[in-house]
Amino acid sequence: MEIKPNQPIVPIAIHPTIFVIFGITGDLANRKLLPALLSLYVKKLLPPRFAIVGFSRRSFSREEFRELVRSKMNIQRGQFNEEDIKHFLDHVSYEQGFFNSAVAYSRLAEKLKSIDDNWGQCSNKLFHLSVPPNLYEGILNDLAKSGLTLSCDDRSGWTRILIEKPFGNDIHTAKSLDKLLGRLFKEEQIFRIDHYLAKEALQNILAFRFDNPLFESLWNNKHIDKVHIKLYEKIGVDGRGSFYDPIGALKDVGQNHMLQMLALVAMNQPKSLKANDIRKERLMILKSLKKIAPKQILTNVARGQYSGYLTEAGVAPTSNTETYFRIKTYIENPKWKGVPFYLENGKAFDESKTEIDIYFKVGKGHSLMNKKVNGEIALEGQNILTFRIQPDEGIKIKFFVKTPGQGFDIEPKTLKFKYSDVSSFSVVKNDYERLIQDAFTGDQTLFASTGEIMASWEFVTPILENLNKLPLIIYEKGAKEVV
Amino acid sequence: MEIKPNQPIVPIAIHPTIFVIFGITGDLANRKLLPALLSLYVKKLLPPRFAIVGFSRRSFSREEFRELVRSKMNIQRGQFNEEDIKHFLDHVSYEQGFFNSAVAYSRLAEKLKSIDDNWGQCSNKLFHLSVPPNLYEGILNDLAKSGLTLSCDDRSGWTRILIEKPFGNDIHTAKSLDKLLGRLFKEEQIFRIDHYLAKEALQNILAFRFDNPLFESLWNNKHIDKVHIKLYEKIGVDGRGSFYDPIGALKDVGQNHMLQMLALVAMNQPKSLKANDIRKERLMILKSLKKIAPKQILTNVARGQYSGYLTEAGVAPTSNTETYFRIKTYIENPKWKGVPFYLENGKAFDESKTEIDIYFKVGKGHSLMNKKVNGEIALEGQNILTFRIQPDEGIKIKFFVKTPGQGFDIEPKTLKFKYSDVSSFSVVKNDYERLIQDAFTGDQTLFASTGEIMASWEFVTPILENLNKLPLIIYEKGAKEVV
Repeated sequence: MEIKPNQPIVPIAIHPTIFVIFGITGDLANRKLLPALLSLYVKKLLPPRFAIVGFSRRSFSREEFRELVRSKMNIQRGQFNEEDIKHFLDHVSYEQGFFNSAVAYSRLAEKLKSIDDNWGQCSNKLFHLSVPPNLYEGILNDLAKSGLTLSCDDRSGWTRILIEKPFGNDIHTAKSLDKLLGRLFKEEQIFRIDHYLAKEALQNILAFRFDNPLFESLWNNKHIDKVHIKLYEKIGVDGRGSFYDPIGALKDVGQNHMLQMLALVAMNQPKSLKANDIRKERLMILKSLKKIAPKQILTNVARGQYSGYLTEAGVAPTSNTETYFRIKTYIENPKWKGVPFYLENGKAFDESKTEIDIYFKVGKGHSLMNKKVNGEIALEGQNILTFRIQPDEGIKIKFFVKTPGQGFDIEPKTLKFKYSDVSSFSVVKNDYERLIQDAFTGDQTLFASTGEIMASWEFVTPILENLNKLPLIIYEKGAKEVV
Repeated sequence: MEIKPNQPIVPIAIHPTIFVIFGITGDLANRKLLPALLSLYVKKLLPPRFAIVGFSRRSFSREEFRELVRSKMNIQRGQFNEEDIKHFLDHVSYEQGFFNSAVAYSRLAEKLKSIDDNWGQCSNKLFHLSVPPNLYEGILNDLAKSGLTLSCDDRSGWTRILIEKPFGNDIHTAKSLDKLLGRLFKEEQIFRIDHYLAKEALQNILAFRFDNPLFESLWNNKHIDKVHIKLYEKIGVDGRGSFYDPIGALKDVGQNHMLQMLALVAMNQPKSLKANDIRKERLMILKSLKKIAPKQILTNVARGQYSGYLTEAGVAPTSNTETYFRIKTYIENPKWKGVPFYLENGKAFDESKTEIDIYFKVGKGHSLMNKKVNGEIALEGQNILTFRIQPDEGIKIKFFVKTPGQGFDIEPKTLKFKYSDVSSFSVVKNDYERLIQDAFTGDQTLFASTGEIMASWEFVTPILENLNKLPLIIYEKGAKEVV
């Protein structure tokens, strides 16, 4: 008998809400934020009364702004219909202003108040900073001065802030950003977006682990040999050279996406499915990461740069920025003692794929093959469980079957599951849709906590500080591996 | 990196050999034996010098016999070509004789001697008893009297006997048959055919278990909740009523195929891949089976008969013969203490399938779902590993994934592997081909040992003796389940 899956309950925000986008004319707002908001609107998942207020330095007439937003909405042909876009745009307005102008913030405050007055209610306010991180501090300070970080009415309307990675540039700048955020907002008001956390395939790691005792029984250093987290990208910097070059691979995806994957794979079962309990367990892992000391950097870390990177637009011609890294680390708790975790990211690889490979130990005296061949080949006899995060989300297990015919020779084969086989997979929201809805309803499960951000930086900063001790390996575009 | 599978080594018999078939005109010889021999001949897996001598009571001219055999060879159109059949038939000859006639055995002995004389060598002799089991004793005794069970030359030519199930009718008759066999042959000369053991999917249970520590680590009562071995047949007795009715389901498949499956699933890792070591471990399990006492029969065993069985040709009109049984038993060793093993066989079911389901325990405090729903539903949250023996040989694992979308609801899905995906699967020999070749080369791995036969009967006999205490459940043809 099959289990009838519970109908997932979709919480819907109903209190009137204003979504303020700083930098609404920018790339992120256009590619991710506005389409996600429109999609939620079409699915009737936004409050009946909602407004989007764009804030940016460019000057537009009302019509010009509508046209600008409209033109960005149908990048994927046929994704939305014109009628829906038209109605959606009735909720969108624009306030021109420079991010460092006190007067502009006053005008913004007035605008929000006039919307509230019109609704006859103190609404919720969500501020999204779609701006370069170096502007965060100025905007946050000006927001505070204008009184906008405070709710107009503590009982009915809340204020929340949505910010995007990178959250700081190292542990020091991250701490100072966090100090500022902490002065202006409580933890439950701060939503730090690591869009990887919203991926179904990542969330499924928890369901897979904690709903399948068959596998969770094996989830420790007695049975697991090593864990390899790979994030390979086929593209290079792809026009984003001026953004990427000052940052590099480790800060771009290592400090956030990859450490979050590691946390999900290694965390203990949370006490409940509440955001706080899940975030607490993720944090425990990030805090337990073994720091890599300066003298260990040569053996535990490698960095590389693809050939041709220096001629990309926006890249300094003598840049040492890494487009590849590989880190070997450990989790210092009894469950994972002695199990190496590898984090590996590379741009300009032969294919784009994100995978987590769990290598199981070769049992002593277990494998029949072990007895027939030498130790070297036996190592290849490892069972590997792979979480495929993207593309083609799924799970596979490398195992061994008997080669048909006489004798007991074996060969590797695969047990497979494709996540797209789940019937309701096609209706999955994209990462941003999911995250924005969660910000509306106040669910912080898929957002990184202050503690997690700090723990990640604590781990990454000593590596960053010693990265220049490592040779920069130049690898060809289309590489399959670097080290 | 993938392992390059070792090329299986195919041992080939080279010493001249005579294959004697008692009852060569019967169903088994025609459907299984002769096509398997022809196929081995075509693949050049028989010794360069070989002869097949048929022995039966019917009288044929040499041409009539050739024509009879030829006509049976192309049941599957295009399986063999006429040229191959013609050359194969040059190796086949016939000796008419009644099975209880001493003179006939002398003539047979002379015939074999004349072949040896012709070859100028003492050849190997293989005797296959393709006759009803009630004739075994007479034939074996007469064989012994004629001196045919002894080799003409101990150094160069061996003698082997191939017999078919049922090996006796209960523990008592099995013991007396065995005593007789033991007087005439050594254990290494006796080849008891349980063709299930030759199935690739069954042999693969060992490779799967002992070459995949991922799974073997879980192979005990700490992680396994129960084991269910199912052998469902779509057909009823299908014209074999007169054979089946005196025997019944338990003796037809329970005492042999199903207990062998149980032994393979539960056995410890053998010391080596040698036949003796594997047979020893299978035997250990069969010996450890908990006997079902008379007063436990009502709770641990069920029997049934399909509606319409009594009108089948060859079936006694008041027959109580079971066409269905279900047994719950245990293995009395520390590894399997407390884990029920279910054996279930039924004829006239809705589909033909043989499967072994391994149910894993639901972890305490593991399943996230457990916390959300009541205990009853949690039981359905079991992981199940299924060995599919036939048809569509393969392995699958029922596991749970997150239902896409908000929340952490889960739903059951399947990790799958089809054995036909193994490239060389298409060249697998059929059961009889494999077994005959192993008899030629002397590999007893896939044959049941005396000990195994006795242990099986020790387990089955007390059930047989108390079967009539059970209500005979009448079930409809096409049933999905009976109890």
